This record gives sequence, C-alpha cells and structure tokens, in this order.
Amino acid sequence: MSYRAPVEQIQFMLRHVVPFADVAATERFAEATPETADAILNEAGKLTSNVLAPLNRNGDLTPARLENGVVRSSPGFADGFRAIAEGGWVGLAADPEYGGMGLPQALNMAVADMMSGANLALQLNPLLTQGQIEALEHHASDELKALYLPKLTSGEWSGTMNLTEPGAGSDVGALTTKAERNEDGTYSVTGQKIFITWGDSDVTENVCHLVLARLPDGAKGTRGISLFMVPKLIPDENGKPGRANSLKVVSLEEKLGIHGSPTCVMSFEGATGWLVGAEHKGMAAMFTMMNCARLGVGMQGVGVAEAALQQAVAYAQDRNQMGQIIQHPDVRRMLATARAEVFAARAIGLACATAIDMERATGDRDHAARAAFLTPIAKAYGTDVGVRVADMGVQVHGGMGYVEETGAAQYLRDVRITPIYEGTNGIQAMDLVGRKLSDGGDAAMRLLDEIFDGAKAAHHDHPDLTDPVLQAAETLREATQSLLERDLTLRFAGAVPYLSAFARVLGAHYHLRAARHGGGAHVALARVHILRVLPRAAAELQEALAGLDDLTALQDAHLAGDFAA
Amino acid sequence: MSYRAPVEQIQFMLRHVVPFADVAATERFAEATPETADAILNEAGKLTSNVLAPLNRNGDLTPARLENGVVRSSPGFADGFRAIAEGGWVGLAADPEYGGMGLPQALNMAVADMMSGANLALQLNPLLTQGQIEALEHHASDELKALYLPKLTSGEWSGTMNLTEPGAGSDVGALTTKAERNEDGTYSVTGQKIFITWGDSDVTENVCHLVLARLPDGAKGTRGISLFMVPKLIPDENGKPGRANSLKVVSLEEKLGIHGSPTCVMSFEGATGWLVGAEHKGMAAMFTMMNCARLGVGMQGVGVAEAALQQAVAYAQDRNQMGQIIQHPDVRRMLATARAEVFAARAIGLACATAIDMERATGDRDHAARAAFLTPIAKAYGTDVGVRVADMGVQVHGGMGYVEETGAAQYLRDVRITPIYEGTNGIQAMDLVGRKLSDGGDAAMRLLDEIFDGAKAAHHDHPDLTDPVLQAAETLREATQSLLERDLTLRFAGAVPYLSAFARVLGAHYHLRAARHGGGAHVALARVHILRVLPRAAAELQEALAGLDDLTALQDAHLAGDFAA
Repeated sequence: MSYRAPVEQIQFMLRHVVPFADVAATERFAEATPETADAILNEAGKLTSNVLAPLNRNGDLTPARLENGVVRSSPGFADGFRAIAEGGWVGLAADPEYGGMGLPQALNMAVADMMSGANLALQLNPLLTQGQIEALEHHASDELKALYLPKLTSGEWSGTMNLTEPGAGSDVGALTTKAERNEDGTYSVTGQKIFITWGDSDVTENVCHLVLARLPDGAKGTRGISLFMVPKLIPDENGKPGRANSLKVVSLEEKLGIHGSPTCVMSFEGATGWLVGAEHKGMAAMFTMMNCARLGVGMQGVGVAEAALQQAVAYAQDRNQMGQIIQHPDVRRMLATARAEVFAARAIGLACATAIDMERATGDRDHAARAAFLTPIAKAYGTDVGVRVADMGVQVHGGMGYVEETGAAQYLRDVRITPIYEGTNGIQAMDLVGRKLSDGGDAAMRLLDEIFDGAKAAHHDHPDLTDPVLQAAETLREATQSLLERDLTLRFAGAVPYLSAFARVLGAHYHLRAARHGGGAHVALARVHILRVLPRAAAELQEALAGLDDLTALQDAHLAGDFAA
Repeated sequence: MSYRAPVEQIQFMLRHVVPFADVAATERFAEATPETADAILNEAGKLTSNVLAPLNRNGDLTPARLENGVVRSSPGFADGFRAIAEGGWVGLAADPEYGGMGLPQALNMAVADMMSGANLALQLNPLLTQGQIEALEHHASDELKALYLPKLTSGEWSGTMNLTEPGAGSDVGALTTKAERNEDGTYSVTGQKIFITWGDSDVTENVCHLVLARLPDGAKGTRGISLFMVPKLIPDENGKPGRANSLKVVSLEEKLGIHGSPTCVMSFEGATGWLVGAEHKGMAAMFTMMNCARLGVGMQGVGVAEAALQQAVAYAQDRNQMGQIIQHPDVRRMLATARAEVFAARAIGLACATAIDMERATGDRDHAARAAFLTPIAKAYGTDVGVRVADMGVQVHGGMGYVEETGAAQYLRDVRITPIYEGTNGIQAMDLVGRKLSDGGDAAMRLLDEIFDGAKAAHHDHPDLTDPVLQAAETLREATQSLLERDLTLRFAGAVPYLSAFARVLGAHYHLRAARHGGGAHVALARVHILRVLPRAAAELQEALAGLDDLTALQDAHLAGDFAA
C-alpha cells in the first residue's frame, strides 16, 4: 500500500468545479488566496503521504489496547498525532482568537479527505477534536473557551463526543445518564456511554469529553438533555491537567475495522462536569458538533475510496494474467467507474464545505440552506462510495484481496463504519426528505436550477453529455415534487434511493463543470459518470416513489422467510 | 445468531417455481418423489439448524491453525463434519455404485444452501469433496474410482482442488508445477500451489489432492496440463491410508473471513500422483470439478444471505428506537428488498440445478445448454446477493453491526470470498457473454421465450406486474441481440452489468411463478422485486452497451488520479 495524496485533483476541483473562489473573495476568508490554498494542500499532501499513511497498517495489525485502565495506542500513532498537532492541522479552521488559523472548511475538509485516505483510524482523533472545538466556539462560556480551546486547537488535548448509550443509539432522547447540580456551579455526571471513539489514549496529555446527560428536572426525550464538558484530568488553576476525574474506560470494542481507533465503553461515576450552553439545551450544541462531523465522515468515505482505488490501480498494473489485468475491459470498467464516483463524491463534499464557508462569511440564508441540504448527501453518498470502491478494490485483487496481507481488505473493513456512525445513512436520507425538504423544496429547487443552468451552459461543447443530465435532472425535479406532496412516513420509505439519485445527478453536474474546464481526460471521466453512473438514478427515483404498501403487506414473519405465516 | 434452515421456502420453490417435478418424472431420478424430497430437506434442516449453525462462531473465533505441519481444525468442526459424513450428505448426488444416493443436484444444491447458511467455513469441505467426486466419476480410471470414490462418498476422506499458483490465478495456463513419469506408471509431482481450501485437516483420515501439473512434453498454456490424484497418505494394498506422500502444508493464509476453513499453501516435492483422464487433458477434468463447484458457490451466497437476513430481521424486531426498528420504513425497505433478492437468487440456483439434472437424466442438448447458460448467472448473482444482503445486515444492526460480537460482520467477512473464488464474478460474466452466447444466442433466446410466456400466462391475474416484466425482457432481448453483433472485447466491457440485468429479469420470472401459485405474501414479494429490484436492469443494460471508448480514453494514470498525465 502506498498512498499518494490527491493534491492536484483537489486543487483542480477548488479552482474549477466548486465555488471556492467565492469563498476566497469574502472578507472573512481573504487570506485563503489561491497561493495559500495551494501551499496548505501541498503541505497536507506531504504529511499524509509520508508520515500518516506508513502508519496505517500498524493500526490494523496492532490495535489500540486497554492496559490497567489506560488506552495504549498503536505503534507510531502518538508520533503521527504529534505531527498533525504540530503542523497546526487540528486548528486549521478554528478561531484565530484561540490559536486557530481561521481558514475555510473547504480546505479543512480537503485535508480531512487526505488524512482519512492515509490513516482513517488516526484521523478520527483530530476529526472529533475539531467537532468539539466547533461546539465550544458556538455554545461554551468565555471561561470554558479560554480554558479548553487553546489546548484543543493546538492538539495538546483531544476531544470526544459522548452520546450513545447501551439502550439509546439513534434514539438519543432515551438516554439515562444523569447530571446533578453541585454547590460550586459544577455538575456531577453519572452513567455509561458506549461507542466512544478515542475515549482515551496516550497521544494527548488530556482527553476532554463532551457528555450528554439529563438533569433531575430535565424533561423526557431530547428536550431535557444538557451538555457537559467532563475532562479526564481536571485542569488546575494554571490550566494544566490536574487530578483525575471520576471516569474510566470500562472496555474497548472488538470491531470489524479501524483497529487503531480505540472505541471505548466509558463509565462516569459522579464525574465533575461543566455546563456547555444552557441547561436542557444540550442537543443544539451536540448538533453543532455532529453537523461538522457529518461532512467530515463523508470526506472519510472519499478519502478511503481514493486510497483503495489507487491501490487497486497499482495492483492491476502490476498483475499479469494474460496481459496486465488493467487492460481487461471489465477491470478497466470497475476502475473507471470508481474514479468517476470518487470525483463526484469529493465534489459534493467540497461543494458542501464551500456553502458552509459562504454561510459563515456572509450570514446569507441561501448559503445556509444549501449547506444544510448538501450535508446529508455528502455524508451518505461519500460513505457509500467509500464502501463501494473499497469493495471493488478487494474484487480487483482477486484472491489476494481476501488475504489480509495486501491491505485491500483493511480498507473495506475500515470504511464500513462510515455509513453507520454520525447518523446512519438511512437517518441522513430521512433528514434530507424530512427536515431539508421542510422549506417546501426551495433549497432543492435552487440546486436543481443550478444544475439545469450548468447543463445548458455546457450544451454547446458537449451536447451528447448534457441531454442525459437535463433529462435526469427533470426526473429528479418531478420526483422531488411528488415527495413534497407525501407525508413523512411515505417520504421515509423512499428516502435512501432518493438521496442516492440526487447524488448521481449532482455528480453529473460537477463532472460537466470539470469537462468544460479540464482537459480530455475530464471529458472522458464525465462520460463514464453520465453514461454509467447517472442512469441508475431513474430506477432509484422509481423506487423512491414506490410507496409503503408492499412493504407493510409483508409481515415480519415473511421477511424472516416464514411464508406459511 | 440463530439460524433456521429455510426448508419450507425450498419445498415451495421445488414444487411451484422451478421444474423439479420434471426431474422426478425421469427414470433416472424416479426415487426423488415429493415425499422423499421433503424428508431429505427436513433432515438437512435439522442437521444444519441444530448441529452445524451452533459451530459457526467457533470457526471465526478460533481459526484453523497449523501445528507442526498438521492443520488443527476449529473446535467442534470434526464433529460437525462427521455428522455430515454419517448422514450421507457428501454422497447425496453421487453414483450409487460407489455408495452415493444418486439423487438430483436440485436436492444437493438445496442442502448446500442450508449448509452454507449454517456454517460456510465447514461446508467448503464437503462442497470441494463433491467436486472431486464428480471429476473422478467422469474422468478417472476404474481402478482409481474403486479406490477413492467409496472413501470420498462416505466422507471418510476429503478432496481438494489444486489449481492456483503464485504466478497463475485466473490464468491457469501459466502454471509451472511439473509432473514426471515414473517407471511404475505413477507420476512425480513437484511445485507450489496456493489458496488450497481445506488443504489439510484433522476432520478426515486422508486428504486427496487433485493437482494440475505439466508433463515435460506438455505444451505451453492450458493445452499442456494434466490432472493427478495426489493423496496425502498413499493407500496401501487394502486401500487403507498408508505411508505419507511427499507433500506438505507450508502455511495458512490469514484471511478476511471463513477463518474456520484452512486455506493452505501446499508444496509438492516429488509427490506420487496418479493420472486422472488422459495426459495433457487435465483442464477438461478440472472444468468438471469447477462447474459443479461454481453452482455450489452460488448457493453459498444464497445460504449466507438467508442467514444474514434472518439475523437482521430478528435484530430489527428486537431493537427499539422510537418503536421497533423493523417498523421504520427504510429498515423495512432494506429487509423486504433483501428477501426478494434472496428468493430470486435461490430460484435461479435451483433452476440451474434442475437443468443439470434434466441434462443428466435425458441427455438432451437443450437442457445442457440451459444448465451451461444459468451456471455463471447463478454463481455471480447468488454471490453478489450474498454480499449485498450481508452488508445490509450490518447496516440494519447499526453500530452493533460493526462490533464483532453480534456476528453480523462475520457473515459479511465470510461471504466476501464467494464473488472471488471458483472464477471471479467478472470471469463468470465473460463466460456468459462469450462462450454461452457462442451458440448465436439460442440458449438465451429460449430462456427469454420462457420468460415472455410466463409473463403472458400471469397477465390475467397480475396485469400490473406482468407489464414491467415484459418490458424489461424485451429490453434484455434487444441488448442480447446487440451484444451478439459485437466482438468479444466489446462484449466483455459490458459483461458484468449484462449478467446482473439478466438475473433481475430471471428473478422477476420466478417471482411471477411464485405469485401465481403462492399466497398473498408471494404476490407482495413479487411486487417488491418487480417494482424495486427489476427496474435497475434498464440502466445496467444501458451500461452493458456503453462500449469501451471512454474506458480506453482514460489512461492508467488518470485512473490512479493523476490528471496532469
């Protein structure tokens, strides 16, 4: 496995495919000139290709482990994290007031793409720390900000998100962790949390837990939940890590992949916590953290897909079976389709990031709506592509893909978590057809208008490519209208295929932009997408509108295979 | 994980969906009365549900290992194999002259379905032994048959297939293992083989290797290859295992899954072998073995899909997140679609088996052509469905699917080999559009005619369902005609999507038969297939005809992500 960070691909995309120039033209992001952006991406490329990627197998072969209550990270991971921290990468998009660089999310997400491709298990640590920084920036008191943000931004401390409990996964409102008010204004937090990524480690000197818990007078459901900062080591008066808090790692999960990322069962036993945001308003703060992480997870899918695809291409060039297998039509079809989908997923993710940046720079509601609309698509499609491409990578390797030594299987095992965490892809799709269409379809239609305009502008140069895009976009518009006329339950039944179809059409839109501005290779790649990837949107939209009747006509027993029932 | 063998589903299918009655009406299979078939399936259901399934986790958690050159199998596997052997299951379809039951492959493949769902790693042993029995029945001398067939049929000895070498995977003709003639009529075999499933074990008293090797005067390529029986222990004059042959297990592969199945690197060092078939004609005998195994591997996909789906349904019923998650529209959509695909894949596999039976019972060329045409579809679609459904099973489990303790991930890891071995699914598809269309499309068109006739016959009762099937079948017929007009390279570029589309249409055909003969649940399931699974065939056929130009316009460097090239 030798990963080469896709620096030039990303530079091309920021220049010609997504509206990064608009971001750089704002006052807030005036420092993000093309030269600065290029320099940052080049540096990230070196870090990820040369430092992080060579550690990726270590994480898989020597998983993080629990020793006397302390998590020991995989060999080299501490050095890898230090390189990330010292390069300032954790704080790339963080507030300069607390040591961040204040650069656009578009650059931050491009770096996340590369970091995930190089080493997904390790990248989870800065990703979650960044999410915590965002949550604190938006919701914490000035005292908490002053205490925690510099340490998190510099990567001296890391951050976690404590949300899931044994009985409450996607149903956060069912959580039972308790918080009680102490006389000194702090809180005592008691309860068990599961699936806590990087819940402890030896790569930072402190681990800061953001924990959702319910106060005694908190209402049932999500409205009665508050958010607390619960550090592993309580900062002393100088802000240095002091006495140990009353919390511990109970165990680590044995997982399919990302073995280098310790997934902890955490126990809080009257641990001291500090309120973040207002009492009972914890979900809002948690959503800030999750929203940031959702796009980041989408980029994880893109990053691993890139790495798996590079490996598959290298193997296919190297492997001879009646000639190089990369010359076999079916192998070439798999690789080309994967390259087209990686391009599409990356473009959607970076377009989402630029919308976030524009929202922050301008406060404009349309940009906010665009960012909100693209986030679930970027998360679900990015991670679906991650799994599809890693799976393709195994297949191209043949029998060698099934033995662990090649590393092809590791990509598949690692990336398989991404359609699950930060809200399963089913939940992303429900968010899209529910909350994100609750504006009556305005955000969707504005995006579709842009797609139509783009296709019309490309028509003169590429008439054969624009017609299928216009047709697919029209089918998508009609399907969107139909969904808007249905109640939520009916929409939910079609949510996943609808999201997938929207991503295919969006991908075609960005491919057309690349074809207009790039060379012949970009035209060929656009053709692969539009003639091979896009056509499946029609069937997906048909399924999206197929309703619920057949699904409910089948009883549970029938689904289990008992047709006598 | 608790697996319930799908006995009633298979009984219904043999009675109403595939032409098993025609098989039972032949003289050769006169014993396969409905009562006998039901009794056999019921017995297999008990064995697989009660004996083999409970061992499935053992194989994963305690892999087979190499100790002092001997393979120690996973805990309980020896007992499990003994139960298979003593029940006569290895010899279910084998020649009664050598102790077999001589029953139809349709029953044998139905049992393979159940055995794979219960314990894929263990089932590989009888599957490969059956393949060896077939090869010997067709190609071995009477002496070899008399010596080996009774032992293999009874399950006292097991069989392996030694084909792959480090430098020769799908390209068998490149093999370098040598055979030299000895004066006593035996041969000395020298070389290394890889990926040898159950290459050694302690579950049988002898392991019989069928080894492909080249004689000194053998031509280059596949035409100069001969096949040899090379037993681990050379039978003495009484046919008992005697002195050790000059062969050994060098190492076991560490694999993504099927940990209970030892995958061996074998070294033959002047090992004594006996010729099977004529010199230089080894490929024909190996193809006999592979053909049998190909359909068996397709049934493995079906079996694991059944098991993974049952587990997902049980979890979705058990798991509460704002109500049972099985009531959530998207979860129900996933489960119902999976159930429809499992039905379709099983029907295609059993239809293929009945065609094999009819060919053997009647010698009729149309049946032979039907069997040959369906084999690659049954293998590729069955295993694709296996991976898709196991992947869906992980997703339905959410975070619990990613931790190994639930076993959902094991199904995905285990079944992932099936699209690779016995010829990758890409090779199956090339076989379909190459060799299997080399009759000018006769076999394909006869099958399509049957599909049209079936849809027309169902029209009166289910007009809303038959129209989409007729339309999809017509698109498939046109695409078949177009492929026939193209050269092989162009066909290969569209082979995989063509095969997938053919499977969707075939699946719809069998669903319509079930809808006509079964109750309301079968109608609802047919609707799920025809309205959700079938529509994707159109896009696949479009891709099948999309040609090669775009794929070759992209250079290798572009596929690797270097667009400056």
